Amino acid sequence: MKKIKFGIIGVGRLGYEHACNLATRIPQAELVAICDGNEAAAKKAAEDLGVTAVYTDPKDLCADANVEAVAIVTNTASHVEMIRIAMDAGKHVFCEKPLAETVEKCKEAEAIIEAHPDLIFMLGFMRRFDHSYEVAKQKIDRGDIGDIVLVRSYSQDPRTVIEGNLAYAPKSGGQFIDMNIHDIDLIRWLTGSEPKKLWAIGGCYEFPQYKDWDDGDNVSCLMQMQNETMAFFFANRTAAHGSAVETEIMGTKGMLRIGATPTDSLVEVFSEHGVCRECYQDFVARWHQAYIRELEVYCEAVLNLKQPTPNVYDGTKSTDIAFKCKESFIKNELLTL
Amino acid sequence: MKKIKFGIIGVGRLGYEHACNLATRIPQAELVAICDGNEAAAKKAAEDLGVTAVYTDPKDLCADANVEAVAIVTNTASHVEMIRIAMDAGKHVFCEKPLAETVEKCKEAEAIIEAHPDLIFMLGFMRRFDHSYEVAKQKIDRGDIGDIVLVRSYSQDPRTVIEGNLAYAPKSGGQFIDMNIHDIDLIRWLTGSEPKKLWAIGGCYEFPQYKDWDDGDNVSCLMQMQNETMAFFFANRTAAHGSAVETEIMGTKGMLRIGATPTDSLVEVFSEHGVCRECYQDFVARWHQAYIRELEVYCEAVLNLKQPTPNVYDGTKSTDIAFKCKESFIKNELLTL
Amino acid sequence: MKKIKFGIIGVGRLGYEHACNLATRIPQAELVAICDGNEAAAKKAAEDLGVTAVYTDPKDLCADANVEAVAIVTNTASHVEMIRIAMDAGKHVFCEKPLAETVEKCKEAEAIIEAHPDLIFMLGFMRRFDHSYEVAKQKIDRGDIGDIVLVRSYSQDPRTVIEGNLAYAPKSGGQFIDMNIHDIDLIRWLTGSEPKKLWAIGGCYEFPQYKDWDDGDNVSCLMQMQNETMAFFFANRTAAHGSAVETEIMGTKGMLRIGATPTDSLVEVFSEHGVCRECYQDFVARWHQAYIRELEVYCEAVLNLKQPTPNVYDGTKSTDIAFKCKESFIKNELLTL
Amino acid sequence: MKKIKFGIIGVGRLGYEHACNLATRIPQAELVAICDGNEAAAKKAAEDLGVTAVYTDPKDLCADANVEAVAIVTNTASHVEMIRIAMDAGKHVFCEKPLAETVEKCKEAEAIIEAHPDLIFMLGFMRRFDHSYEVAKQKIDRGDIGDIVLVRSYSQDPRTVIEGNLAYAPKSGGQFIDMNIHDIDLIRWLTGSEPKKLWAIGGCYEFPQYKDWDDGDNVSCLMQMQNETMAFFFANRTAAHGSAVETEIMGTKGMLRIGATPTDSLVEVFSEHGVCRECYQDFVARWHQAYIRELEVYCEAVLNLKQPTPNVYDGTKSTDIAFKCKESFIKNELLTL
Repeated sequence: MKKIKFGIIGVGRLGYEHACNLATRIPQAELVAICDGNEAAAKKAAEDLGVTAVYTDPKDLCADANVEAVAIVTNTASHVEMIRIAMDAGKHVFCEKPLAETVEKCKEAEAIIEAHPDLIFMLGFMRRFDHSYEVAKQKIDRGDIGDIVLVRSYSQDPRTVIEGNLAYAPKSGGQFIDMNIHDIDLIRWLTGSEPKKLWAIGGCYEFPQYKDWDDGDNVSCLMQMQNETMAFFFANRTAAHGSAVETEIMGTKGMLRIGATPTDSLVEVFSEHGVCRECYQDFVARWHQAYIRELEVYCEAVLNLKQPTPNVYDGTKSTDIAFKCKESFIKNELLTL
Repeated sequence: MKKIKFGIIGVGRLGYEHACNLATRIPQAELVAICDGNEAAAKKAAEDLGVTAVYTDPKDLCADANVEAVAIVTNTASHVEMIRIAMDAGKHVFCEKPLAETVEKCKEAEAIIEAHPDLIFMLGFMRRFDHSYEVAKQKIDRGDIGDIVLVRSYSQDPRTVIEGNLAYAPKSGGQFIDMNIHDIDLIRWLTGSEPKKLWAIGGCYEFPQYKDWDDGDNVSCLMQMQNETMAFFFANRTAAHGSAVETEIMGTKGMLRIGATPTDSLVEVFSEHGVCRECYQDFVARWHQAYIRELEVYCEAVLNLKQPTPNVYDGTKSTDIAFKCKESFIKNELLTL
Repeated sequence: MKKIKFGIIGVGRLGYEHACNLATRIPQAELVAICDGNEAAAKKAAEDLGVTAVYTDPKDLCADANVEAVAIVTNTASHVEMIRIAMDAGKHVFCEKPLAETVEKCKEAEAIIEAHPDLIFMLGFMRRFDHSYEVAKQKIDRGDIGDIVLVRSYSQDPRTVIEGNLAYAPKSGGQFIDMNIHDIDLIRWLTGSEPKKLWAIGGCYEFPQYKDWDDGDNVSCLMQMQNETMAFFFANRTAAHGSAVETEIMGTKGMLRIGATPTDSLVEVFSEHGVCRECYQDFVARWHQAYIRELEVYCEAVLNLKQPTPNVYDGTKSTDIAFKCKESFIKNELLTL
Repeated sequence: MKKIKFGIIGVGRLGYEHACNLATRIPQAELVAICDGNEAAAKKAAEDLGVTAVYTDPKDLCADANVEAVAIVTNTASHVEMIRIAMDAGKHVFCEKPLAETVEKCKEAEAIIEAHPDLIFMLGFMRRFDHSYEVAKQKIDRGDIGDIVLVRSYSQDPRTVIEGNLAYAPKSGGQFIDMNIHDIDLIRWLTGSEPKKLWAIGGCYEFPQYKDWDDGDNVSCLMQMQNETMAFFFANRTAAHGSAVETEIMGTKGMLRIGATPTDSLVEVFSEHGVCRECYQDFVARWHQAYIRELEVYCEAVLNLKQPTPNVYDGTKSTDIAFKCKESFIKNELLTL
């Protein structure tokens, strides 16, 4: 059983999760090197996971001959530079979403990746790898719901983490880029099409701070796809019930809903509040299995030297659409793409 | 459109509900006379419902030539006497459950009713007439779930009404007779069989007062029916979520559950408690439609002069079984019937 | 107990339902006259419901001195004329939705009604009177979900009745007018605001016939309200699971969903298809209780001589918005109202 | 990060699952040796999982100095002998349930384990380690539902695997021992008590073959625990909807239900069957996460040299109760323990 030797750059919250998965939960992977600008964090993760090679400079990690593939989980603004360093060092690259903070930089990433066609690249739109999304996709692909008519996708962040979200807001890019980019990726994936027209609206219904960043705390967008399917998506930062991602796929012969009651517990609570299902409170818990599965798929791709999806173009396109949404939102105009 | 002229004896809480239904919600019925020992209550109901004949003595109501059928909604101890008075006066009788407070008095009722084969009698086990129970029965009868294996039936009273329940406890007969008699009726109806063995247990888990009446606040019973089907039922007075009656019918080819989430609202509440369905808090609200439907069925029976079910024997048998449950509970022994 | 004497004009499917309700299920109402251009239908209904006054000409029914209020359940194109005849004869009017087939005719209705301020008028947007919608409205009004951010409302017709729908399509006005007018009314009612911008899209995903009437078999619309709340609605004629109306109200502090699983049965079916809830197949069954409740509310309004809502302006505004949706759909443009 | 070196004996279906988990999904474990009487199976698993030490004789595996802990996943009849061999060789032991096929052999296992107090032993009642059961247990332990009144636990095997179940039936020990032993373990764990009386019933409702083994295809049992709590459990081999384990815990202040809709998918399917949740079809898929979690807990116990639960006495007691159930079932009598 061949194992791919991974180095990871960035072991913040999500980086640490990926590091644990690579080290302990993915049969085809081995974690051999860790890099983080925060040396203490790098050392702590290395110790926890039994990794001996520890770096603070990504170049050093990429220069480590033992490393075959690099997982990039740094801040968005550095992604393209990290891809360049890793690929120039001959490493396969798995990069967290979003690809970059501008469409221009996405194009740069495309150029780098195209210059290394032998290196396997994958972008971490993990929702596609969630068990429920995989189940739904299989049903769609075998025709259970007929032709797709509408995709509706919601991304709700729990109100309980609003402070962290507000602190992060200035560099998040806004709801369309930070949150809905996932919904946009799902819509492209599920409809097999690109938007031709879109209109985004929303506002600050409780947290006026978002106005400072030309953003809203609740936003939505209607898109008309080139193949005439419809898509509606929504994001907020004020969900009472938890970390809730829901996707509905309406077809001509049936409908699927994923995550309308977002919980991994089979427990029903009968209390004075009625019959209740308690929900995920945290995105890392929600996507735990998907984060593992995406890296399993990536490992298979590396082992077979076959480029997987989501690829760099999925990154560019979703980013481009998210920026168009933001433009439409700011202008309050219908955009034709 | 022939309407049956009803007199009602007893306009307490449930009696008033029946009176309203007869007066305003049942096309084939007309309420023409009201009797209650509490004259003010009788007058109030009569005024509310536009009824002119008001009595305080049941004999007077039964002597009213305008009355064709009598609905008896008095206290259990008086049921048999009311049936006698009404039938001796030549009136059809609809009687609330339970038939009587002893098996001996149930047998008396049988004798009275057998002596008047031309008069239509029906006992108010309303659960059989609830829309959901009717839907389930149809599925069973057409074979959707194969042969019946097990019926499980729960009757839960909300904790919020414990004070009233405790006050009523001395004359309620106990959980088996007051609450589970409904479950027993459902089990007989659904399995089409009578118990051959039973064992009842339970206790006072929070309200020791029930010990004074040889009762528990939570009780259960396992029954083996003559046709080898199984039945398990349960009652409590301590439900957090509301007034909850649930029945499960396990068959060889499928299973049905009725009322596991007991609500008539299609509203899902997404809150800090999760995704919640709020439940019925009150049995009159829960069975509102069934109370109407049972009287519609009774009216059809009177119009067609065909004896309906549940009949007097259903009353006797359920009462007999409920007393056997109580005996088993007190002795903590398996009883063979 | 004062009862209002109703005449009904139109006893087709929904008219017959209203006639039954007036005759037998609404305490404050009495049905005293029936009119239908189809004499046989009028006579049949009259016989079923014990009504003696039968007419084929609405003018005759309105001239009947015994009639106090008129329920209009004729085809849409005749509504305004019926309102005129009834009001000119001094009758209160309950009119089925939609008010009229053009905004101009809605305005005519306004003028007629304004000319008779002493006569009580109500328009039959029954969804507002559904128990679940009433429960949700109460929660919203007492602040349970904070300020409203988004209303999403779906109207799905079962695929099983597509033949009837196609036959009716030429005179239905299209999905926005025939189906979504209800969603538009709900959105106005729930947000307390009027749209300032809207964009409607959709298409013929399975039944190209709808193109002939500038319509789609699946359509949707995003609206921005004057108070900055958002609204998204959808209609189709191809629902696999039944007659499904769903409304979601997203607030700053919580979310409500009404009818996501559209069923009045508490039965869960455990079968080879999983754990299933069977859904309404028919809109009359779905709204049975709401049709009764709206007439109860109307009767109270007549008895108290207080104008209720939904009123004629609700009819005009919803009609106007529905036409704007259709215009936006045909032009595929964002409209500013 | 210290890893425990495991050898596994038995790589049939469940053994292979455990082997994969030990090799790839449990951070604190390393799989270093595989033994199976079927040499090809042992070699295949070893190759799949990169294990070099392969044995066909359990004694040889236990003599392997590299092995620190042994996972026993052989047929039930050999469990005690395997425990003896492993412990005599100084190895820690994780043993699949059931402990043994007779109470006498369970006692033998107790003696062996007591003779090696320094070796860590755990029995694989994995349900306790399922995420949903852990969530429920936490709620119970912090008092959310008050005092426990009743535990109801169902174990349903899908009808689709009846052929395999019938083939296995002669050596399964019957439903009480093969299936309900899990429910018995849960009941003991959740009530913290032992049964004092029990009555088991059931029958062959579709597969008369089970009569040959003094068994039923659907069976149930009511137990009264020493602390007066009640327990009802049920097992069948004829479930239409899948592999369904459900547990209800009724307390004085609330109720919990685990697994009433047994699915790991968040997908709702809207089809002609209504709104459906598709269920687990297979017990290995259902308990995948619990199988991992129990071994994680076991590894922690080994690393800390603290005896975990479920222990050997849990095995003996559940086995004893299961046999009492079978005795009660055969005699159709209430047993006092």
